Amino acid sequence: MRYIVGIDVGGTNVVAGTVAEDGSEALGVVSEPTLSEQGPDAVVERIVKLARASMAEAKGKDIAGVGVGSPGPLDTKSGVVLLTPNLGWTNMPLRDRVAQALGLPATLDNDANCAITIGTGIGGGIILGGKIYHGASDIAGELGHMTIDWNGRRCKCGNYGCLEAYASGPAIAARAIEGIEAGADTSLPQYVQGDLSKLTAQVIYEAAHDGDGYALEVVRETAKILGAGVANIINIFNPQVVVICGGVTLAGDKLFVPLASEVKRRAFKPAVDVCRILPGALPGTAGVYGAAAVFIQRTWGRV
Amino acid sequence: MRYIVGIDVGGTNVVAGTVAEDGSEALGVVSEPTLSEQGPDAVVERIVKLARASMAEAKGKDIAGVGVGSPGPLDTKSGVVLLTPNLGWTNMPLRDRVAQALGLPATLDNDANCAITIGTGIGGGIILGGKIYHGASDIAGELGHMTIDWNGRRCKCGNYGCLEAYASGPAIAARAIEGIEAGADTSLPQYVQGDLSKLTAQVIYEAAHDGDGYALEVVRETAKILGAGVANIINIFNPQVVVICGGVTLAGDKLFVPLASEVKRRAFKPAVDVCRILPGALPGTAGVYGAAAVFIQRTWGRV
Repeated sequence: MRYIVGIDVGGTNVVAGTVAEDGSEALGVVSEPTLSEQGPDAVVERIVKLARASMAEAKGKDIAGVGVGSPGPLDTKSGVVLLTPNLGWTNMPLRDRVAQALGLPATLDNDANCAITIGTGIGGGIILGGKIYHGASDIAGELGHMTIDWNGRRCKCGNYGCLEAYASGPAIAARAIEGIEAGADTSLPQYVQGDLSKLTAQVIYEAAHDGDGYALEVVRETAKILGAGVANIINIFNPQVVVICGGVTLAGDKLFVPLASEVKRRAFKPAVDVCRILPGALPGTAGVYGAAAVFIQRTWGRV
Repeated sequence: MRYIVGIDVGGTNVVAGTVAEDGSEALGVVSEPTLSEQGPDAVVERIVKLARASMAEAKGKDIAGVGVGSPGPLDTKSGVVLLTPNLGWTNMPLRDRVAQALGLPATLDNDANCAITIGTGIGGGIILGGKIYHGASDIAGELGHMTIDWNGRRCKCGNYGCLEAYASGPAIAARAIEGIEAGADTSLPQYVQGDLSKLTAQVIYEAAHDGDGYALEVVRETAKILGAGVANIINIFNPQVVVICGGVTLAGDKLFVPLASEVKRRAFKPAVDVCRILPGALPGTAGVYGAAAVFIQRTWGRV
């Protein structure tokens, strides 16, 4: 297994991590404030120092290269950051400076990440070119209110068939209750002393973990529905990373494994290939995985 | 009725038009190459000249102000374009220079537009901050392959329930044929001498125009489906303009009127309020409408 140092250069923080080529782990995730007011040389020094610190924590791993994600506009071919108002850089050969200092091949790209938070509702955040994308009137990123069934159930927002109406915590419980009321064979009512109003997504996960077949079916259906939503995001944004966080993600692999295979079944392969679907972790890790993913794609073709 | 001069400043062309406050028309749409190599003063002069030419064609109309759309980054509050690599501008007070030259209040904003082309397939294009958005591997903008029914029909792309599987030209015909085969009361077969393989969206529009109730129902259902797709785009991108073009849009008001009301029913009001849904027209007109829409929103609150 090869590893890539992913470096996420932001206006506020620089984050580095050493990412397995299959995306299964990020070792030695370290972070420091960018302090761009100290000038480009100081920031490059800081980037190199963090990369070395991360590699030191990933001691013994085969490090193949460095992926740097930076706000742009930038020229990915020459590896030069053309302009960054936030950092005050102009025509900064960031890729080659990092590559030379570390003695490793490097890539440079903008970051393009999407985040979904799934809990009582489903919220979204879109980061394009290192900046949060707001839209014309600060509404952009309402990923939970994307219709995934145009004939579907009414959502609290007034729309019909929204992702949130199926896959938020309360919606997962509501779907399970409908099944129970329709006669599903399940021990779920015992988990809530027969009071179905106490049923939560968390309880359903617990029952699925205990081997309740119906609870597992509800989790799998949730994964399929979320998979359709994430596939839409991938076909529309072609992002490097989709981060999924919030209470609903506590189901772990029972949720993420079928979700990933549903996304693969649905979205365009060249877009799936460059996109990591990650459970929310340390702040900034998404950018680290994204920068590493760009290195992998550029250097070895598809991930 | 008040009018606003919308000006779309692009790297290649400047387009100006005088837009009715209800978005019903753009008068005097005029365009010239930007010729940014001549320097900022020459470009501002050109912008002002085009605005005057447009207002002259809209003679007698009550012109309330000017909306300028420009690539960024820019500061919408001070009306200053901070940096435009394509135009070579730095800290250019574009809003005030245009306002002073024309003696009218003005606004300045980035353009954020989405375009959908509906024909044999459904293609998309996303313009954010004056630039086409490509994503991490040039797949972004596959708006036709957004799932709007996660349990829905198989699409040629391999996904299920895509917008394209319901609302492309051939998909519209396929839905009509399914209804006819299920016994719908319609004169549609007569339009194709009984050979349903010859049925096209165009023929269905013709029959709807002639008063065939079932054909009209197919058009209305198409509008509802497209409405769900456009509502998703609005909730996700919060754009200033969604342009819909291609053969399928030839149905005109029979399609656009129910489509607009479906979008209104589904998407968030503050996002619907700032977004124009337009049939594709002259190249560049979308930017003109978008710039005018920003003026209306900033100056008079919601559109």
